[in-house]
Amino acid sequence: MLSHDAKPAQEVGRERGRGAHKGQQTRAAILEAALSLASQMGIEGLSIGALAEVTGMSKSGVFAHFGSREELQISVIREYHARFADEVFLPAIREPRGLPRLRALFTRWVDKVATEIDSGCIYISGAVEFDDRPGPVRDALVEMVRTWHGALDRAIRLSVDVGHLRPDTDPMQMLFEIHGLILSLHHDARFLRSSGAVDRAHKAFERVIQFYAVDPAKAPVGAVAINAAKVEGERSSSTPL
Amino acid sequence: MLSHDAKPAQEVGRERGRGAHKGQQTRAAILEAALSLASQMGIEGLSIGALAEVTGMSKSGVFAHFGSREELQISVIREYHARFADEVFLPAIREPRGLPRLRALFTRWVDKVATEIDSGCIYISGAVEFDDRPGPVRDALVEMVRTWHGALDRAIRLSVDVGHLRPDTDPMQMLFEIHGLILSLHHDARFLRSSGAVDRAHKAFERVIQFYAVDPAKAPVGAVAINAAKVEGERSSSTPL
Repeated sequence: MLSHDAKPAQEVGRERGRGAHKGQQTRAAILEAALSLASQMGIEGLSIGALAEVTGMSKSGVFAHFGSREELQISVIREYHARFADEVFLPAIREPRGLPRLRALFTRWVDKVATEIDSGCIYISGAVEFDDRPGPVRDALVEMVRTWHGALDRAIRLSVDVGHLRPDTDPMQMLFEIHGLILSLHHDARFLRSSGAVDRAHKAFERVIQFYAVDPAKAPVGAVAINAAKVEGERSSSTPL
Repeated sequence: MLSHDAKPAQEVGRERGRGAHKGQQTRAAILEAALSLASQMGIEGLSIGALAEVTGMSKSGVFAHFGSREELQISVIREYHARFADEVFLPAIREPRGLPRLRALFTRWVDKVATEIDSGCIYISGAVEFDDRPGPVRDALVEMVRTWHGALDRAIRLSVDVGHLRPDTDPMQMLFEIHGLILSLHHDARFLRSSGAVDRAHKAFERVIQFYAVDPAKAPVGAVAINAAKVEGERSSSTPL
């Protein structure tokens, strides 16, 4: 690289690639810091200035990666959503359709909220922060929450289809009840600092299942074994989050 | 009053009373504006300056009634709590012990949240705003929420005592589930702007009752009539909120 000769085109291309790669790494590092900041201060606490301070970068350096505060906030919401998908959704949909998958979605959701007791969940706090602030940030948050609700809704409908839940199950009603358990967990563990909230969430979830299950005595566990073989071949058709 | 003579002591006292009364009125007017501001902007959005602007008073005028921003925030939380007690708790504990009272507490809580869809609930948004901000404001919020949880806990225990709910009912578990319904209602109606959340909350509450009731088929309605006479005489011992 000390040569003053013009570099061959291939090498220039490789360096550009490296430059782009470094740019992506910097962007990822800023996003990482932004996620951490947002979980402590809220999405409204995010600003180019605050982020420059935390990362030790110049404001213009941060600005080069995120053109505006709003774009930064939306990028953080999308990054949170991508991680949520990786940690909660994707491993859960590898479970067989029906209650095993629905239970995996819930269990991993509880795990995610439980690991966020100290930092806070961006979905939950964002919903309160932006519930009356119209605009692109709110729209991005609503879209992410709706996407996640859509995934749960499908898992409930599939549980009906494979015969684990009663045909008259109202997916929106069941979703309302399940989501409430997560919100109660977040409230009690984070705000009231009360212990035992995770256990309460699991116990309550089993009660909800018990209510909607075809055969409360058997379905939650029994149906899994009965339908596992049938369900095995259907996994590939799951709609991605 | 046009007389230049010294006023009799009695009259001076009456005027002082009037002055104090006027002071209370001003304080009440400021609190009213502060409550409205807090439900829109959050408790963190409350400041002596913002309130002076909204009320058209001077900063020093507002300051004379609330010595600090923190005192103002705590006063708003207490005022919200007092109104919550008037609208939800006090009318509900006039109902007979057991399920009628527990159902009244829940129904009025739903009504309160439903009327606050546009403004927001200070308990719920405050819990998220202050979940990781230690200090007297958070302490005041936690105290109010715990007091309300305590009232619900007593109503559940009384429902067990009068034989409406099963003796093995875990009040903390039931409370966790009921509170989740309110949080889900607030989230769906206010953030997702989804219709039908109030109906879902009521339906889910009846399901929770059905699970814990001694006789799911009869207790929720039947027990009221059966025990009404017996319960009538016990009302006066209710612990105030």
